[in-house]
Amino acid sequence: MTCWENSSHKEIKVRLISVSSKTNSGNFFEDFTLGQTIQHATPRTLTNGDAALYTGLTGSRFVLQSSAVTAKNYGFQQIPLDNLLVFHIAFGKTVADISLNAVANLGYADVKFLHPVFAGDTLSVHSEIIGLRENSHGRSGIVYVHSTAVNQDNEIVLSWNRWVMVAKHDVEAAPPEAHIPKLPEYVSETDLPIPEALNFSDFNTVESGCDYYWDDYGVGERIDHGNGMTIDNTEHTMATKLYQNNARVHFDEVYMNGSNFRRRLMYGGHVISICRAISHNGLGNALLIAAINGGVHAAPTFAGDTLYAFSEVKQKWEINRSKKVAALRIKTYGVKNLPSTEIDSPYSEVEGEKLLKPEIVLALDYTVLMPMK
Amino acid sequence: MTCWENSSHKEIKVRLISVSSKTNSGNFFEDFTLGQTIQHATPRTLTNGDAALYTGLTGSRFVLQSSAVTAKNYGFQQIPLDNLLVFHIAFGKTVADISLNAVANLGYADVKFLHPVFAGDTLSVHSEIIGLRENSHGRSGIVYVHSTAVNQDNEIVLSWNRWVMVAKHDVEAAPPEAHIPKLPEYVSETDLPIPEALNFSDFNTVESGCDYYWDDYGVGERIDHGNGMTIDNTEHTMATKLYQNNARVHFDEVYMNGSNFRRRLMYGGHVISICRAISHNGLGNALLIAAINGGVHAAPTFAGDTLYAFSEVKQKWEINRSKKVAALRIKTYGVKNLPSTEIDSPYSEVEGEKLLKPEIVLALDYTVLMPMK
Amino acid sequence: MTCWENSSHKEIKVRLISVSSKTNSGNFFEDFTLGQTIQHATPRTLTNGDAALYTGLTGSRFVLQSSAVTAKNYGFQQIPLDNLLVFHIAFGKTVADISLNAVANLGYADVKFLHPVFAGDTLSVHSEIIGLRENSHGRSGIVYVHSTAVNQDNEIVLSWNRWVMVAKHDVEAAPPEAHIPKLPEYVSETDLPIPEALNFSDFNTVESGCDYYWDDYGVGERIDHGNGMTIDNTEHTMATKLYQNNARVHFDEVYMNGSNFRRRLMYGGHVISICRAISHNGLGNALLIAAINGGVHAAPTFAGDTLYAFSEVKQKWEINRSKKVAALRIKTYGVKNLPSTEIDSPYSEVEGEKLLKPEIVLALDYTVLMPMK
Repeated sequence: MTCWENSSHKEIKVRLISVSSKTNSGNFFEDFTLGQTIQHATPRTLTNGDAALYTGLTGSRFVLQSSAVTAKNYGFQQIPLDNLLVFHIAFGKTVADISLNAVANLGYADVKFLHPVFAGDTLSVHSEIIGLRENSHGRSGIVYVHSTAVNQDNEIVLSWNRWVMVAKHDVEAAPPEAHIPKLPEYVSETDLPIPEALNFSDFNTVESGCDYYWDDYGVGERIDHGNGMTIDNTEHTMATKLYQNNARVHFDEVYMNGSNFRRRLMYGGHVISICRAISHNGLGNALLIAAINGGVHAAPTFAGDTLYAFSEVKQKWEINRSKKVAALRIKTYGVKNLPSTEIDSPYSEVEGEKLLKPEIVLALDYTVLMPMK
Repeated sequence: MTCWENSSHKEIKVRLISVSSKTNSGNFFEDFTLGQTIQHATPRTLTNGDAALYTGLTGSRFVLQSSAVTAKNYGFQQIPLDNLLVFHIAFGKTVADISLNAVANLGYADVKFLHPVFAGDTLSVHSEIIGLRENSHGRSGIVYVHSTAVNQDNEIVLSWNRWVMVAKHDVEAAPPEAHIPKLPEYVSETDLPIPEALNFSDFNTVESGCDYYWDDYGVGERIDHGNGMTIDNTEHTMATKLYQNNARVHFDEVYMNGSNFRRRLMYGGHVISICRAISHNGLGNALLIAAINGGVHAAPTFAGDTLYAFSEVKQKWEINRSKKVAALRIKTYGVKNLPSTEIDSPYSEVEGEKLLKPEIVLALDYTVLMPMK
Repeated sequence: MTCWENSSHKEIKVRLISVSSKTNSGNFFEDFTLGQTIQHATPRTLTNGDAALYTGLTGSRFVLQSSAVTAKNYGFQQIPLDNLLVFHIAFGKTVADISLNAVANLGYADVKFLHPVFAGDTLSVHSEIIGLRENSHGRSGIVYVHSTAVNQDNEIVLSWNRWVMVAKHDVEAAPPEAHIPKLPEYVSETDLPIPEALNFSDFNTVESGCDYYWDDYGVGERIDHGNGMTIDNTEHTMATKLYQNNARVHFDEVYMNGSNFRRRLMYGGHVISICRAISHNGLGNALLIAAINGGVHAAPTFAGDTLYAFSEVKQKWEINRSKKVAALRIKTYGVKNLPSTEIDSPYSEVEGEKLLKPEIVLALDYTVLMPMK
């Protein structure tokens, strides 16, 4: 199992609707079976336009995704699209089949960016149901899904696991045999996907805007990423539409007024992207995400919230000395409406239990590729 | 005449301003003459960037406009740009000359998408005044316009008719002889433009995200499209700017505070695009709009409104059996702030008159191309 | 010195924070030295996606930046990207090093667009400190910077000067010797950069949407640009993110709640772009900005403000009679929440001093290239 933390399981409570027979109402918990495979609609061709909009929505300024000249210097024929843009678009494809009736997104594990994606590539996504467990109250259950995105040449560009709490439509439906898949706590050094072309032997810290090489980071070190970023409604809904993610909770204010949140919920992936963009200040040479080891959306985020972030270094691996490529496993915390410097530990102890503080909205454990000296 | 409905003619009441001699104050009703032709400024090259922004603004996920691989499978060299994006950009060109002083956009008819538009194409638009009728109160009149968009090779990509109520500047100006053009109720089967390349003989419902072929829809059938989408100010103004549509009512809050609406009005075209995007759920194989037969913006839409949609099937035609191409004439209703399932009929009877209900913001009669079995 | 005006020096008063050692807290006044050179991070490849988003954010519709066919007719191989988009992206690069601790952006001078930028070009920016002057109260000082943007072939595409008031971190730090650089009042006729390819000998006023040639404008003439445009939070923050400008004042609402503004401040460059877009109405043939002579952000602009603009013609030069290229030096005033027609003079006299009226947010002195008859 992954290094999962309390998410305090904030469920969205909304009423289910039934519409005409041709309308997709999504799958419910009892609709999934272990081993089931699903090919998701809609293949998507990514373009420079998507990349520009991603920059406009996040302000991301990592040099490898910003400059074609730099990308060439580090081994790529053209700019590799931001791995999080690729992830959100691939993830969005699974929503209509997997999580239209989700009451909580519980986590990700073993997310591997296996091949770079370039403008012009077309991605398709399929999934397998790898675990099921009904909740004791019988109104919902947890679905574990392994998903894979391939490009037009059928190369796997991304694979990931997530688990999500899905409502039952028929609470009388018999529970499936519980099966919880074994998932790695983190993507190990040997499993870490490294783009073959990647070469940092001629690295330029002036271009990247950060003086610190992999060698300069120590396990246990904490980095506060400074500036916060306030997110508005158009911004998060536009990001989510760009990803063709049609989860209702992000878009339908009338519907959400009837939920316990009483407003639209920000797509958690946008929170990840904003925290990653903010992390440039202090981790400006973390040029590529190789893997996401695990993640939790610990608290909901809404329009008007200001996001701050800080990171902790968890592990370091030298990957390829001649190409000067190394990896850093880090954990980035997203903080809501409070500068990260005002948070000492992300945890507080409540009645003997170690819980994430209420200001923490995200705890993302991931592994980045960096230049070494 | 088209199948036009009551729009309850919600006129925008605003004061007219006069500025310096070099500023375009737009044409007034008395400035138009029957048969007059107008070449509109500004030609526009459409790009992948426009397509990406359109996706970000609408969340549209019809597969033909999403995937270059799929587009190729169905006969196109590359992704044909969304016909509504093309329409809005072409339409936007006419605003400065036709509708800067519009008090109400009354309707469209005989809109035909005659040639696909691809990234890199440059569109130019010209119009002819085909009808004029002064209103009995003498303060405004209806202008009927036939407009045509051509690409860089002078191929007609789109033609349409619209009529719009335009203010008079000089209420004493003599009324023109009334002339109301004959416009078809709908684009007939034989007039329906079908892209020559289009071929659905190897159609893939998994890719499109919809199981239903043309054969599965029956005349009179109603489809509720499920999820609603809330629209904010930046979103609709950004869409309208992308289309280089400079109609003041969408942008100038100070000006609109002096109108009876007391806020910026959403561009009706954005409402159409949102309803079309929502309609994917239930009409996911309606891959191309071939024609818009008529449309009415029955009530104004503002930032903060949540749009829902439902559709009725009006007619069906088999187009090309060997290429498996067929057409469905549908009418999509946009509903404001109320799930469409809570509306049984779009009409209510008020003092013996059949009127669109106040929640209905759009009634769009159009014809789509779909795969047949 | 430039024709600089009172900006009433609205300083942003915020507290300084210190974070971890790897986080860039920006340079303070005492960190700069005369003659110092700085290579800025992050090179950026501009694309059609950036151009589309710029159109969506501003609504700009100058024909040269809108149509590839027109661009070719006037001498360019493809659309030259909007000079203001180029300026904002280049400018944004300097923020992390120059103005992260700015308390006021005081002005620009001698901004020259020396070479067109096309989609696919990669820009890098470097700066030299050309002047320093500590303020008498000793808590901040003015830094004068000359910056240069080059493309992937090391051609200078843009150079500019700006001066900015930067906070001291250590108020006890000794002041540098004051040095105020000599900057031209305006870019002279002989220094004006004219794209070699530019040729208006076959100009088309129908395409541009404006009937007026250079010959039709007289020195001293005023043009009111009509329609206003209301700006929302997502819009200005998205523009600023697109430019990868990470100045905290535009993004961090929590931080800004602690400032005297009590909300996010709009990036002044977005104000310039909106006023330029609005100026199409009356200056539609001002197809290229050749130089910015000077500019002042006279008052802060916030989300919800509606911008209007008017311009005054200051000088005219014939540049190349055979290519029909001429230049107009204009001054465009941005007005907040009041139609420009309601402002007669931009100045009022307060106790014998000529001050910009409080509604004026921008006074931009720049030189455009236009077709002559």
